[in-house]
Amino acid sequence: MIRTLDQMVERVLLSKRRQQIAVAWAQDANVISAIHKAVKYGLVDAILIGRTSEIKNICRKNGIDPSLFSIVESDNETEAASRAIKMTREGDAGIAMKGLVGTDMFLKAVMDKKNGLMIPGAVLSYVCAIEIPAYHKLLFITDTAVIPVPSLEQKVEMLKYAVEMAGRFGIDKPRIALVSATEKPSRHFSSSSDYSEMLKMAEEGEFHDCIIDGPLDIFLACDRKSVAVKGVPTPVNGDADILLFPSLESSNPFYKGLMLFAGGELAGLIRGTEKPVIVMSRSESEMSKFYCIALSCLMA
Amino acid sequence: MIRTLDQMVERVLLSKRRQQIAVAWAQDANVISAIHKAVKYGLVDAILIGRTSEIKNICRKNGIDPSLFSIVESDNETEAASRAIKMTREGDAGIAMKGLVGTDMFLKAVMDKKNGLMIPGAVLSYVCAIEIPAYHKLLFITDTAVIPVPSLEQKVEMLKYAVEMAGRFGIDKPRIALVSATEKPSRHFSSSSDYSEMLKMAEEGEFHDCIIDGPLDIFLACDRKSVAVKGVPTPVNGDADILLFPSLESSNPFYKGLMLFAGGELAGLIRGTEKPVIVMSRSESEMSKFYCIALSCLMA
Repeated sequence: MIRTLDQMVERVLLSKRRQQIAVAWAQDANVISAIHKAVKYGLVDAILIGRTSEIKNICRKNGIDPSLFSIVESDNETEAASRAIKMTREGDAGIAMKGLVGTDMFLKAVMDKKNGLMIPGAVLSYVCAIEIPAYHKLLFITDTAVIPVPSLEQKVEMLKYAVEMAGRFGIDKPRIALVSATEKPSRHFSSSSDYSEMLKMAEEGEFHDCIIDGPLDIFLACDRKSVAVKGVPTPVNGDADILLFPSLESSNPFYKGLMLFAGGELAGLIRGTEKPVIVMSRSESEMSKFYCIALSCLMA
Repeated sequence: MIRTLDQMVERVLLSKRRQQIAVAWAQDANVISAIHKAVKYGLVDAILIGRTSEIKNICRKNGIDPSLFSIVESDNETEAASRAIKMTREGDAGIAMKGLVGTDMFLKAVMDKKNGLMIPGAVLSYVCAIEIPAYHKLLFITDTAVIPVPSLEQKVEMLKYAVEMAGRFGIDKPRIALVSATEKPSRHFSSSSDYSEMLKMAEEGEFHDCIIDGPLDIFLACDRKSVAVKGVPTPVNGDADILLFPSLESSNPFYKGLMLFAGGELAGLIRGTEKPVIVMSRSESEMSKFYCIALSCLMA
């Protein structure tokens, strides 16, 4: 079982499956520096699509040897995005990654029905693995970036993605907490009835082998002591692997608070695609960017 | 300006206004131990309402001198609750506090139109001041406990309470972040239009002298570096004093995550009452319970 993000990197290196990663509109110092680190580690080979001269300039300024990368000339943002997706779809690359291209434009290329990378009919979602020094293992959190207010059907898919990801980390029977403000169902939250449905589906094996409960608050989900003090028995027992949140306004402040104030690091990935697709925010730390690339290799 | 919860305690002690606190249904070791600490510190005098023999037993078992408290015999939960509220309403006590009585029953007594403690027409809400070692000052968060999904009108009252509390801490011009998942308004979140209204109201002086912006994510609200990296200018500038959340499912996981993983301590208080009313959860740390009592003295 992988308990830290560094262990995840080691696992990928041990697999000796070096992925090709196609970067759309790559002339960005942040992106190139993260990619460079991944290439040096031997995680990936990189195809940088964008303005060759700018890419080489950035490399030079940052003391990076541009011959470490394949560079494919493109002087058009949209074209660079669809080229990266096409190379990935056709197997010239195993992973697609957003560079300087706008997120909306990049995702449009990913979701293009004819030339995109979506699994037909799949829900686009985002799962991240967060490492917090004060927790004894990784926490898988969904959805922190894509679906604003998921329907029951979307929650079900979100959870399946998280279970699948946890499985790649060697967690065969994840403990799943369906998060809310308290353990008491409430008519004020649509999550309560959705969670009740999901528990029934879990009993019917919909999420494979797992331990699931909800609604639960963060204390009951992640703190064994609180379970004892509150006297609320739950099979999750303060030992959650997966936290499913009711909305982006719920998940997003939670994980950002932990990144900022609890020394958290994370690796996140879009789900629902045929091949891994990396979309990173500029505000993520360099380590998180590196971990995102490693995670995409693990899931490839 | 008060920057830590210990400074808050010092400020209360300096004021030399020792409050009387009436505890409803007091025969609980947790409650008595928190009250005992506050009495020893000289913050309050305590009137413990409940089963005298049980109260004395608990004191004896925990090495506490029962003569430190006034004990008022009651052998009925409901009666103990209304007695504590009545004593506070009539000025025999300055603060009412929930003991072993159920929260719902206690709040019913607080909200009773004829005999309760509510300010007529006021919104009942909950503000807490959280101290996080990794942040450079206290964060005032609302609402973490009472209003599930606040309307615009409730958000306005929540914010006024938080501004008032920050004022007691010497923050005359608070920086207020209206929290969401990103800084971009979204039709998926009803908070977006409410926040837009609140910005207009702020311009008209509704929240007195303040710096306010939203929607903002936690990074833009609380991390100056992120403001620079993201290139999103906001007057809050990563230096927020007050975080207003769109729902309990948003605020609650956030603050509990920080309590659990970021070494947070907090002091929280119900607002909308004529006199301070303390409702503490069993799962709060002993320090947090003590800080809640000190906060009620500061606000009395």
